[in-house]
Amino acid sequence: MTAAHTPNKAAIIGGGVIGGGWVARFLLNGWDVAVYDPDPQAERKIAAVLENARRSLPALYDIALPAEGKLHFCGSVAEALDGASWVQESAPEQLAIKHRILAEIQQHAAENAVIGSSTSGFKPSELQEGATRPGQIVVAHPFNPVYLLPLIEIVASKQSDKAFIDRACAILREVGLKPLVIGKEIDAHIADRLLEAVWREGLWLVNDGIATTEEIDDAIRFGFGLRWAQMGLFETYRIAGGEAGMGHFIAQFGPALKWPWTKLMNVPDLTPELIAKIAAQSDAQSGALSIRELERLRDDNLVGMMRALKKSNSGAGGTINDHEKSLSQQKPAQESPALPQTVCRQVPQSWTDYNGHMNEAHYLEAFAQASDAFMALIGADDAYIASGKSFFTAETHLRHLAEAKASDTITITTRVLLAQGKKMHLFHTMYGDDGTEIATCETLLIHVDLGTRRACNPANDVTRRLDEFGTAHANLPKPDGAGRHVGQKIG
Amino acid sequence: MTAAHTPNKAAIIGGGVIGGGWVARFLLNGWDVAVYDPDPQAERKIAAVLENARRSLPALYDIALPAEGKLHFCGSVAEALDGASWVQESAPEQLAIKHRILAEIQQHAAENAVIGSSTSGFKPSELQEGATRPGQIVVAHPFNPVYLLPLIEIVASKQSDKAFIDRACAILREVGLKPLVIGKEIDAHIADRLLEAVWREGLWLVNDGIATTEEIDDAIRFGFGLRWAQMGLFETYRIAGGEAGMGHFIAQFGPALKWPWTKLMNVPDLTPELIAKIAAQSDAQSGALSIRELERLRDDNLVGMMRALKKSNSGAGGTINDHEKSLSQQKPAQESPALPQTVCRQVPQSWTDYNGHMNEAHYLEAFAQASDAFMALIGADDAYIASGKSFFTAETHLRHLAEAKASDTITITTRVLLAQGKKMHLFHTMYGDDGTEIATCETLLIHVDLGTRRACNPANDVTRRLDEFGTAHANLPKPDGAGRHVGQKIG
Repeated sequence: MTAAHTPNKAAIIGGGVIGGGWVARFLLNGWDVAVYDPDPQAERKIAAVLENARRSLPALYDIALPAEGKLHFCGSVAEALDGASWVQESAPEQLAIKHRILAEIQQHAAENAVIGSSTSGFKPSELQEGATRPGQIVVAHPFNPVYLLPLIEIVASKQSDKAFIDRACAILREVGLKPLVIGKEIDAHIADRLLEAVWREGLWLVNDGIATTEEIDDAIRFGFGLRWAQMGLFETYRIAGGEAGMGHFIAQFGPALKWPWTKLMNVPDLTPELIAKIAAQSDAQSGALSIRELERLRDDNLVGMMRALKKSNSGAGGTINDHEKSLSQQKPAQESPALPQTVCRQVPQSWTDYNGHMNEAHYLEAFAQASDAFMALIGADDAYIASGKSFFTAETHLRHLAEAKASDTITITTRVLLAQGKKMHLFHTMYGDDGTEIATCETLLIHVDLGTRRACNPANDVTRRLDEFGTAHANLPKPDGAGRHVGQKIG
Repeated sequence: MTAAHTPNKAAIIGGGVIGGGWVARFLLNGWDVAVYDPDPQAERKIAAVLENARRSLPALYDIALPAEGKLHFCGSVAEALDGASWVQESAPEQLAIKHRILAEIQQHAAENAVIGSSTSGFKPSELQEGATRPGQIVVAHPFNPVYLLPLIEIVASKQSDKAFIDRACAILREVGLKPLVIGKEIDAHIADRLLEAVWREGLWLVNDGIATTEEIDDAIRFGFGLRWAQMGLFETYRIAGGEAGMGHFIAQFGPALKWPWTKLMNVPDLTPELIAKIAAQSDAQSGALSIRELERLRDDNLVGMMRALKKSNSGAGGTINDHEKSLSQQKPAQESPALPQTVCRQVPQSWTDYNGHMNEAHYLEAFAQASDAFMALIGADDAYIASGKSFFTAETHLRHLAEAKASDTITITTRVLLAQGKKMHLFHTMYGDDGTEIATCETLLIHVDLGTRRACNPANDVTRRLDEFGTAHANLPKPDGAGRHVGQKIG
């Protein structure tokens, strides 16, 4: 067995919502995961996180993720760490506890394993105090839900070993995350600094009766929250500055922005009265939904928004696209092109409709993905399209034979019925989780010149590769459902 | 001419990016708009905003917006205000200028017109100082881009007239906005308080060399920005608190959140050096795209994310759904059901693909919308589906006859080919901007019991209404393309 065949293994020390999120992130990306958490509820809690993750993380992708790794719950840190190349510490946010656990981790961890800490507040130099190999310890601060949000703050201290930082980033990217390396350590890193600034201001607004928790949330989500989800703060303001740029923006708005600053210093104490007020307002705002329901609503929305951002390759959408590309490159080449598998993917929640199953438009979205994949197989790929040639769909016949539901894995195989000049006549078959045929798609594509928008013959190389498939498929029996019109009697 | 037929009119005093956004918001919702701005560049600037708005605002909707109103540029405040029921002041952020302009507005405005101010910093009581009718003046603070983001902060002072606040909210909802009424006035209202807290913290991080503008933006958009776009701050933290709730969250995280606060007071001065540093970092981050390109990227992303949020009726997605519902109710009933128009909508940017035209999956999305609309016409509406009955699509044949592109308005008419027991056989025809037939969809739907997932006959009332259409359409000539299979020769 060579190293390439050894499954990667992550050790998650400390479960809970954050630890469970790390478990899901690694497991669903094909890593084996070992968990150590003395909490007797850990297994139940992690199962709940995993259930949420399985219905949402794969839904971000238009290809199947690797087969899930194996999950083990261990009785000791030593057992969990055996063979792990990533160790993630998500212990309670108290320095003494973290020191004790990190010392135990370093006793048992391989010397080249990355030891990440989920700390939201401590500087790496604080965590490294008294460590055997301080350079091995890295702050790897995630954001809830860890199985969906890509950001990981990687914070280095002067004692940090650059080789570990680089390995940490490479591994995080491998499981679809976005490492953001912060070179200068400060308390609470970057993102929580910004969060706390808003949290503090929010507390003050509630305390003084200016706004309720719901009004503050509305002020965020109906306005600048939507801007920030894709561009953040500075790029948004750059646009506001217009062609004159960022310097102009600050010169114009800087003085006005300064006025209320003096009042922002006024931080309310977290008195029992203020805590009760916030809790009551939060109940009024969100109490109609259970936490589980809120989690699923949040996750469905995150998946929907991140899928939208894939279109423009912006922010988190770009991270998913990059990850998808790297996963596709890992896939072994097609052994035999007899009936190539052109799609393998999960059905996202957002593809379902009021009938509780995949909506017909998304059947065609998946079949169109199959046509795209087949085009790439014969050389009509992105570069070919960029050169000004492509295939346009002329007509399509869909048959629905069984239902596909959210989270089902669907696969599609593609058969060439006819390859003749500018015509490419395909027959796609979609299979469900259990191999049942759930839909078919017969489609006629015409090769076009994207400049003139008129039909023309494909490039020689594309014609040759298409013909190879056409010849290989020519003697297969005619598929059920090919050459039929809507409403035609069976037989 | 009765009042009901008088088009609504808005007067926009002060153009620019914010004023232009208000122009677009009213105009694209069918209001006539009169603009007064002494800037000789105002017309050009507003045209640029309108161009962005026309390609993005209608794309949020799955129905057509009302026909655009008329746009006039006026030589005086008096001329602009004639007949206006909404007056929006977007003058520079200096109190003396605002007082002067508001006084001139009140001289000419109808006494029952709402006078909104776009001020981001001033309290309504400050704006109302010395006013003839202080109760008429309302802070109506929008967020850029005003033509897409729904939030408007409506701020009242003790002198504000509740009738004007109520009218302001009603009018804003009518043009698809989300008024958030803030009962207690403070400098900079709510949202800009939160923005400034983050802005101040961001300046400090850049000033001290902890992070660049790009790293700060990444810390936002790859993490909490995505959470905030849909839920805001408090609801997100409620989830983090788990079943124990918000009180538990604050008790658990409150003390940790308090640690770095003392340092947050340390606000950097906006020195020329700091401004230059920010501008240089912003150039490095975003300089590859022009402001116009950044605007369009932002708008496409906002449209994509808001369309995703429509699915779950969350945040801004809920606002669009509500607006869509109110617009549908305004539409006159179908005069004759001969060939009912079942869809009229714009093609969103996100519906197009690498071939530069509407992707085939979205053709079917539009045709599926036509089937849904036809189902509603025969009484198989949301309530019917909630009662446990529906139609499932069995098979579909699509023909593409011409291309549809982003921003095109498409319409679909629906013909019944056969209505027999549980079978509903429809033929949809899609037309482009100029009335050209661009695609057809022949589809067979089967009535089902959603409990058993098996075919059954529709309720009597649905059968009766479907039969009426079937009878009315029975003697129309057979449509081109019906009863054909893929690749069938023409004729």
